[in-house]
Amino acid sequence: MKFQVTVLGSGSALPTLSRNPSAQILDLNDRLILIDCGEGTQVQLRKHKVKYQRIDTIFITHLHGDHYFGLVGLLNTMELMGRKKDLTIVAPKGLKEILDLQMKYGGAYFNYKIRFNELTEKSPELVFEDKIVKVHRLPLKHRIVCFGYKFEEKAKAANIKKDVIDKYNLDYKDIIMIKEGNDLILDNGSTVPNKDLVIPPRKLRSYAYCSDTSYNEELVPYIRGVDLLYHESTFLHQDAVKAKKTGHSTTKQAAKIAELSEVKTLMLGHYSIRYLDLEPFKREAEEVFSGPVIISDSGLKINIDEHVTIDQTTA
Amino acid sequence: MKFQVTVLGSGSALPTLSRNPSAQILDLNDRLILIDCGEGTQVQLRKHKVKYQRIDTIFITHLHGDHYFGLVGLLNTMELMGRKKDLTIVAPKGLKEILDLQMKYGGAYFNYKIRFNELTEKSPELVFEDKIVKVHRLPLKHRIVCFGYKFEEKAKAANIKKDVIDKYNLDYKDIIMIKEGNDLILDNGSTVPNKDLVIPPRKLRSYAYCSDTSYNEELVPYIRGVDLLYHESTFLHQDAVKAKKTGHSTTKQAAKIAELSEVKTLMLGHYSIRYLDLEPFKREAEEVFSGPVIISDSGLKINIDEHVTIDQTTA
Repeated sequence: MKFQVTVLGSGSALPTLSRNPSAQILDLNDRLILIDCGEGTQVQLRKHKVKYQRIDTIFITHLHGDHYFGLVGLLNTMELMGRKKDLTIVAPKGLKEILDLQMKYGGAYFNYKIRFNELTEKSPELVFEDKIVKVHRLPLKHRIVCFGYKFEEKAKAANIKKDVIDKYNLDYKDIIMIKEGNDLILDNGSTVPNKDLVIPPRKLRSYAYCSDTSYNEELVPYIRGVDLLYHESTFLHQDAVKAKKTGHSTTKQAAKIAELSEVKTLMLGHYSIRYLDLEPFKREAEEVFSGPVIISDSGLKINIDEHVTIDQTTA
Repeated sequence: MKFQVTVLGSGSALPTLSRNPSAQILDLNDRLILIDCGEGTQVQLRKHKVKYQRIDTIFITHLHGDHYFGLVGLLNTMELMGRKKDLTIVAPKGLKEILDLQMKYGGAYFNYKIRFNELTEKSPELVFEDKIVKVHRLPLKHRIVCFGYKFEEKAKAANIKKDVIDKYNLDYKDIIMIKEGNDLILDNGSTVPNKDLVIPPRKLRSYAYCSDTSYNEELVPYIRGVDLLYHESTFLHQDAVKAKKTGHSTTKQAAKIAELSEVKTLMLGHYSIRYLDLEPFKREAEEVFSGPVIISDSGLKINIDEHVTIDQTTA
């Protein structure tokens, strides 16, 4: 199954000609999740040939414009292009009120249903779950209420090895029992351990998205061991005072969180417009984090599988 | 004095890779007015090198997203980039409430002052006036409350001819009186007519912006004789039924309004995404309107002077 992140924007605060604000697509076997939706995201979706009507769930981290000003336009476009399929939006409280007001004055309505899960700091930590993914909110420290999200693939029922069914003459009940993880007890009283009966399950993959936040060690237990951590690094280390003042992180702080959390791969982003050259971001993070560091950029596709691999779309 | 329109978007309904939604700059000698502000306008301003902090007045026609979803982002960017100068926004009632709500949830505030003139269908027709320009709202017929705007250059005090002051030995009071349009009465009782004393004033220029609207002859007396009329033409003539149903105009309807109003030049825009080739828009309009027809496109600059001339920026 595909478990792929597409970066649609890597900038902070405001869109420029070279950097769009925050937005990413998490593609779970062509079922698409949108994470954040800064201004211009719908054009980025077109540019990178993302089938945006396949987006079924949208996660917004917080109500600063560079993370959601593109949402109302995208929802309108979905409507204009004939959407009928339901949509779920997980976002801090307030977003629904803003959208409702915009719809009211626009004399507009949607022919598709939007289910809102509006979050406060008292909401349950599990914010979304379906057959293939579960999503927990993550505690971020920013100037306003702000949540990161951890996306975890869910275990499927195990597949039984090809020759086992005939070998032990298994019936339907046996198969169910084995798929549920039980050992097989033979007629002679001996036991075949479950691991000898099933194909070893694929490792479950995980992605944590943490933007925007100050340095926050509280995050560590929540994101421990994830395959890919996106952690904002608005500033280089030299601008640590600005980072602290604005509720953001530096390269080295992002890398420290990644190192403490023993994540497999770190992706940086949300760069301040003051930096044109992003090479120092990679260098500084690699001084602190012992794993690979990815510099996010629009069009970058990160495949999470046995290993993390990168494609760059040509769009 | 410069009196120049820069087109930043010519599309309707939604932004695409090739067409941005509605936005134009009216440049009055480097004092900038923004008309409509669809999503992505701030990036268009950067692309076409418009000094956006020089914008001092913004006119929004109506609260459909393709005419204002880019505004809150632009206002935020102005703040982030250190704006201190006041800004005036003229828009249908509702916009301030939306912006206030977005600011509230964003924990944001502006260090510059925004003066709102929120319009209803009962508001005075003169919606803005200063030393150099006066702006009237225009009655458009759309699915929601929607105003066009007519921008008219104001007369400056006349300049007295070089040799007149010495010839008639004019004092300060005489000069004021002549500048106000009066004739000069000489000591011998004879009269020198005002036109022989002053340099003939330059013709005052005017621009009318009409988007979005159904065919509406009520407009004609308001826009009669303007130098440039921008009239939406969302559809070609073949799609007149769709135009009527959605509260829009066709090429021929826009051209008919232009012809009835005896405007000097017609500019079309707000094209539906169904049309890739815009050549038929020009052809159809020219069948009905006897003056020149301009097909608006991002980056086009239209200079209104003795004649209307066009530059295309290379950005």
